[in-house]
Amino acid sequence: MSGALLTDLYQLTMAHAYFELGMHESAVFELFVRRLPGQRNFLIAAGLEPALGYLEGLRFTPEELSYLDGLGLFSARFLEHLAGLRFSGTVHALAEGTPCFAGEPLLRVTAPLLEAQLIESRLLNIVHFQTLIASKAARCVLVAGGRRLIDFGMRRAHEADAALWAARAAYLAGFDATATLEAARRFGIPASGTMAHSYIEAHDSEEQAFRHFVEVSRSPTTLLLDTYDTQRAARRVASLVQRLRAQGLAERVSAVRIDSGDLARESGAVRAVLDAHDCPAVRIVLSGGLDEYRIAQLLEERSPVDAFGVGTALDASTDAPVLDMAYKLQHYAGRPRRKRSAGKETWPGAKQVYRERDAGGVALRDALVLAEECAPGEPLLREVMRAGRTLGPAPALAAVREHCRSAVAELPDSLRTLGAAPPYAVVLSEGVRGLAAAAPRD
Amino acid sequence: MSGALLTDLYQLTMAHAYFELGMHESAVFELFVRRLPGQRNFLIAAGLEPALGYLEGLRFTPEELSYLDGLGLFSARFLEHLAGLRFSGTVHALAEGTPCFAGEPLLRVTAPLLEAQLIESRLLNIVHFQTLIASKAARCVLVAGGRRLIDFGMRRAHEADAALWAARAAYLAGFDATATLEAARRFGIPASGTMAHSYIEAHDSEEQAFRHFVEVSRSPTTLLLDTYDTQRAARRVASLVQRLRAQGLAERVSAVRIDSGDLARESGAVRAVLDAHDCPAVRIVLSGGLDEYRIAQLLEERSPVDAFGVGTALDASTDAPVLDMAYKLQHYAGRPRRKRSAGKETWPGAKQVYRERDAGGVALRDALVLAEECAPGEPLLREVMRAGRTLGPAPALAAVREHCRSAVAELPDSLRTLGAAPPYAVVLSEGVRGLAAAAPRD
Repeated sequence: MSGALLTDLYQLTMAHAYFELGMHESAVFELFVRRLPGQRNFLIAAGLEPALGYLEGLRFTPEELSYLDGLGLFSARFLEHLAGLRFSGTVHALAEGTPCFAGEPLLRVTAPLLEAQLIESRLLNIVHFQTLIASKAARCVLVAGGRRLIDFGMRRAHEADAALWAARAAYLAGFDATATLEAARRFGIPASGTMAHSYIEAHDSEEQAFRHFVEVSRSPTTLLLDTYDTQRAARRVASLVQRLRAQGLAERVSAVRIDSGDLARESGAVRAVLDAHDCPAVRIVLSGGLDEYRIAQLLEERSPVDAFGVGTALDASTDAPVLDMAYKLQHYAGRPRRKRSAGKETWPGAKQVYRERDAGGVALRDALVLAEECAPGEPLLREVMRAGRTLGPAPALAAVREHCRSAVAELPDSLRTLGAAPPYAVVLSEGVRGLAAAAPRD
Repeated sequence: MSGALLTDLYQLTMAHAYFELGMHESAVFELFVRRLPGQRNFLIAAGLEPALGYLEGLRFTPEELSYLDGLGLFSARFLEHLAGLRFSGTVHALAEGTPCFAGEPLLRVTAPLLEAQLIESRLLNIVHFQTLIASKAARCVLVAGGRRLIDFGMRRAHEADAALWAARAAYLAGFDATATLEAARRFGIPASGTMAHSYIEAHDSEEQAFRHFVEVSRSPTTLLLDTYDTQRAARRVASLVQRLRAQGLAERVSAVRIDSGDLARESGAVRAVLDAHDCPAVRIVLSGGLDEYRIAQLLEERSPVDAFGVGTALDASTDAPVLDMAYKLQHYAGRPRRKRSAGKETWPGAKQVYRERDAGGVALRDALVLAEECAPGEPLLREVMRAGRTLGPAPALAAVREHCRSAVAELPDSLRTLGAAPPYAVVLSEGVRGLAAAAPRD
């Protein structure tokens, strides 16, 4: 599969019509979020690199064309056109890892109408998901106070691609590691994880399970405490570490994990056991239904936690599992275009976003202006693809992660909290308003 | 990528330990949902066919082994073992499309411990997602009263795999078509869709856009009404159909779609316009933020609707975006095994589900029993894989869909509603309770 049929049928019926009607002039589409979920004060743009990879690689295989032919919907000359089709357009985009707000284009695509239309479904499918997860992950990072964050979400991610791209999105937003091996391999993310309850249960005694694991492991281990009785397990770990210390092997146990129960109380009790047995270097990892709210609560309750495993809530963004993201025609054949459907009106024209900062570098407001207008501050959309080719190599994921870290740090304090903040100001220019009035109504 | 690294790292560190410790005896794991979401009275088991495909195809490529070697966590002889590893176990499972309830195994895996452990993450990742979506789709089918249901969700599905498998899961639960072309092609699902607002906007007039589309389309069209003014658009469609009728081409417009506004009122007004212009054959498709609750409400408001496009709410199961699904060790080396973590205790032993029906064929209750026990009714778990090979071809998707339809029809009326019903009875056998008492506590 080339991925060219990863699209909604109507993109092809429209493309067919454009082709037959000779509508080949240049179109501008923008991809943006109409409204932020109530639980998000900002979003983190993500997914650009794979989106550009999709555009560069777009082509129809003979098998795919034969499937389309079999539908009986398309003319032979249209299918011939598709056989030679390559994406030839220009893309301006926010850098991955950039905080963004309602109405701001994450991508602006300028291309012949047929091409710009055809890519809608898959562009949204890619950028929506990674932006969703990066935005969720950024909230965990905000509250974790520098403690280690690990993606544990593969099993409840929405199938394989979601697990892989969620790991990438979380990492670029500041997570430290993932448990998903294929994601670690593919994206160069540190891999993390050691044992599940079944490992303990498969042994006839927990003490033996711990000891065996340390004996055969070739790196420092994290032992799981809550299969039967968490505090008793902590005492067993402490004894084991003391025996290992006598052999000069104390560092073989680097951490313990607690996955159920009252995590603040259990972690406090476990910390006390470990400290009482002179094991201050053994860290505590918490997991089990965690999200940014639970993390904030645990830290408020002074849980002595060193790392968090965040799974389901991250990979499925459970509190806001979708964004109201759209990809809309803003300009075609030299004229602004505007959708006027109730509650879904768009602002026409090819646009740019300027972010204005105060003397201390804190973001003050954004201006949403026509591409040819200017505004104070830094223009955020950069040309990343021209004539269907990416301009230069994609930034390394580590660089994206650092960009995200510094860009989030520049946001006003009011936005960098879990609670709903007054919305950040995104000011629409006179140029955009004027164009909206001029767009065809019919 | 073979998919073998689509797993959590800890599955491999545990497998390594089992290998080094010589823990090769037979294990039984079961995959089940701990608790149903509040908004689900039943689930629809789905994902078995791709899950078995994963098990049959499981192997590590040289590149994957080389990546694992580079992690420095595994012995050379363990990596050699992985190089030759094939899944050799037995699987019992609910047929896809079967309604199921909390605690009931959807799959029971019997295999050497290392193999049964290794597959946990990906099995859950596959079966969780499709069960999630089939369960959501079944609710739409319950309330749509036989009207056509179309999957529109690709753009907000969680990346590509989710879009494809959601289309399959929705179809097996009774949806009629999908807009996602690759899913239509791969699974043989009818494809559906014609135009978006951008098509209308790219024309200088809506009337011209409609006329052009009908002229170039090679099959009956669905024209989109709500780009500017829905009722005016309906009058334009009616005029167009009347002109087409004069040419004997009235059937070129088969439907109209409304995607925004007060859908009940708009559809009523559009129906009136169409009927007043002698277009009773033109059907009405509704879309835009639909889910089972909105569908039920529209029908209660007597919207004259013929078909529903359901997108975001279906493909991301937005009201319940995850299931509390787990895969747990129930038996190893001849002994029952049981997790006792707070709130997450498991019932040990290899189990079977019997569904008892009344004289009219309505499901009365399920019994959750040990595999060697008997109970009244029909045993639902069947052996589907032995020694790593599937037993016979998978049922055709159409047959799964028919099985689902008839099995849902057998559920008590109380469950076949959107509101929360008293839970269906799943009775635990004495055998299971006895085994739980006998499972090791330590």
